[in-house]
Amino acid sequence: MEIHNFLLQIAAIILTARVFAEVAAWMGAPPIVGELCAGIVLGPSLLGWIEPNNVINLLAEIGIILLLFEVGLETDIARLVRSGGKAAAVAVAGFVLPFILGFVLSRYLFSLELLPSLFIGGTLTATSIGITVRILSDINRHRSNEGQIVVGAAVLDDLLGIFLLAVLYQLSTEGKVDTVSVGRIVLFVGVFFFAAPVVAKLVAPLIKHFHRRSDIPGMIPILLVAMVLVFASTARFVGAPELLGGFVAGVALSRRFFLPFGAALHMDPDFTKHVHNEMKPIIHLFTPIFFVTVGLSLDLGAVDWSSWFIWMFSLTVTGVAILGKLGGPWVIRESIPARIAIGMAMVPRGEVGLVFAELGRAGKVFSQEVYAGMILVILYTTLASPFWIKSFYRVFGHRLPNNSE
Amino acid sequence: MEIHNFLLQIAAIILTARVFAEVAAWMGAPPIVGELCAGIVLGPSLLGWIEPNNVINLLAEIGIILLLFEVGLETDIARLVRSGGKAAAVAVAGFVLPFILGFVLSRYLFSLELLPSLFIGGTLTATSIGITVRILSDINRHRSNEGQIVVGAAVLDDLLGIFLLAVLYQLSTEGKVDTVSVGRIVLFVGVFFFAAPVVAKLVAPLIKHFHRRSDIPGMIPILLVAMVLVFASTARFVGAPELLGGFVAGVALSRRFFLPFGAALHMDPDFTKHVHNEMKPIIHLFTPIFFVTVGLSLDLGAVDWSSWFIWMFSLTVTGVAILGKLGGPWVIRESIPARIAIGMAMVPRGEVGLVFAELGRAGKVFSQEVYAGMILVILYTTLASPFWIKSFYRVFGHRLPNNSE
Repeated sequence: MEIHNFLLQIAAIILTARVFAEVAAWMGAPPIVGELCAGIVLGPSLLGWIEPNNVINLLAEIGIILLLFEVGLETDIARLVRSGGKAAAVAVAGFVLPFILGFVLSRYLFSLELLPSLFIGGTLTATSIGITVRILSDINRHRSNEGQIVVGAAVLDDLLGIFLLAVLYQLSTEGKVDTVSVGRIVLFVGVFFFAAPVVAKLVAPLIKHFHRRSDIPGMIPILLVAMVLVFASTARFVGAPELLGGFVAGVALSRRFFLPFGAALHMDPDFTKHVHNEMKPIIHLFTPIFFVTVGLSLDLGAVDWSSWFIWMFSLTVTGVAILGKLGGPWVIRESIPARIAIGMAMVPRGEVGLVFAELGRAGKVFSQEVYAGMILVILYTTLASPFWIKSFYRVFGHRLPNNSE
Repeated sequence: MEIHNFLLQIAAIILTARVFAEVAAWMGAPPIVGELCAGIVLGPSLLGWIEPNNVINLLAEIGIILLLFEVGLETDIARLVRSGGKAAAVAVAGFVLPFILGFVLSRYLFSLELLPSLFIGGTLTATSIGITVRILSDINRHRSNEGQIVVGAAVLDDLLGIFLLAVLYQLSTEGKVDTVSVGRIVLFVGVFFFAAPVVAKLVAPLIKHFHRRSDIPGMIPILLVAMVLVFASTARFVGAPELLGGFVAGVALSRRFFLPFGAALHMDPDFTKHVHNEMKPIIHLFTPIFFVTVGLSLDLGAVDWSSWFIWMFSLTVTGVAILGKLGGPWVIRESIPARIAIGMAMVPRGEVGLVFAELGRAGKVFSQEVYAGMILVILYTTLASPFWIKSFYRVFGHRLPNNSE
């Protein structure tokens, strides 16, 4: 395709995303619903103007990586560590429950084969960290107590998902599981998560130093974007998804992360402000491309809407998908509204669920009908969640302290 | 190629560009020399780590479009119109002279065929508006009197170049020139240049309105980037290069362009500042990718450096290329230093010259030797110009008034 066509596609994506986001906001819905709808409208489901291609996917990937970078930047690492135990408990419970429920339902109620049933369970374990975090920050709750537990749990969920994906992938291609290679992924990811913030911590003063010394403008966006991209590819290299690299880079640069290390960075509190001011326009430009692309990658036209199986299957699996995530937070000690809020925030499957479903389709594990049903499950959980969460906070929000500022 | 490899490539490009730009600045050279060298080092000429591909080319194109947008934004349209006659005279003289000199030299001294000689003349007519403008803004002279003449002349030169390219392209593919289709290009481009600023002028208050009304952040970068990209593709659609669309969008949004229209925009002088603050990081991020890509697209390893012809040919053509552009400004009434400064600023052929040379190579008009020679000419004029111009201003700068502020 010619370059000017790509330019038009990018313009169409960010403009439509914006228009739909504004309409959504005007109707009292979260902007992200508008952005997902923009993708559904522009993509093969409706108008068919834009199909996901290499370039759009790359820009979308940069968008989600930068969003996770921003989330990391605003993460209070001390609180994340304090809530680490709870986050881990929520993540594990919210991983195991939907997996078992989804597997049992598919295997014994719908009498599917073993492998598709395992993939359905796997798809339900996902938590769309991007969508979850975006919903929370749209209502300014991402730095609240329960918001931090959700972020921590979603990150851990993503990691658990990678491991499960690696296992299921081997099972579907080779018929067995190679524990050594799965173990290597676990080891790499673990090392990366401890080493990355340290590296970022060492790099940050260098960035600050060069920013102050250089006469050529643009030091902060270039060095930070480069660092985030390197972290993202390293994450991928060790077997984790790219977006977790962005998150780790953000956490390492967050103001609160620096505090315990002290001295050098205390002297220039303007630096964090600079980082925010210069990165925000870039993040705002790229992020919507990701959510539009999620909508683009769905082909609702391919679904046979008259099939009785699809409706029954997708509705019961959706029920299980919601129950499984809502059940997770009951393993920790929090107020009931907080438990419900955390559970609800974990429901959207979004892009992570799509990765599982796509792998199931590509590996011919899912039949066309099961695939369509899973797409519907992802759609229900992803599109409806923002509304529920917003309504919930409107009614019960006063019973949950907001430590945002 | 996998997405994480693209992420690494982008990181490598912007990081290397930055490091080389800093080294260049530290050695007293313009940063752009560093960025071009970064491309030569990373590309097939030296390390061969990165080859230009669709994605990189697209990001580079966005970079040059955004740079031209910024140039347009900082253009004083009233002064550009006042200097319009001079700019036009410089553009035409600096177009005709190198064309004739290059053609005569190739045809009669080096006894080349008619078509290659015409293409060599054509390549020499180019002025790299991107590089020229970047050199001037690196030394803070782009808003000076002679800077505005150069910008105007470079824009017109680009337009004349498009027309010549259309003619030569038809000549090389069909053996004759279809005046109707060339006339259509001229007409389209003319209409675009008058209509585009009016459209942008009508769109700008809308952007401002939505920016003030919306609760969702990121309105300015999204709407402005979308507008610039739409203008760029429209430019391409009517037959002009994409980057001119960016320039026109910038001119239309520039503070001084609004003034004569008055009222509505006077009320909020903060808006232009907002536009600058939010667009700068994006522009600074993308622009270096373009200059690195120019370096990437050269393969200096393919040149047979022992060939006597290549050296003689490239050196004499370079002489003619420089003389032709230096001769241009003598048709206007300016001080001698201003004439020399304007002429020098028009010398770099950069990306526009590469388009001609690439067309000559792809159409088999240029032999491998002639192509290599032309690449050297583009390289000499592009890499050496920043040094000359900087040195010239260091010595004679005090004799040229700078109306920058």
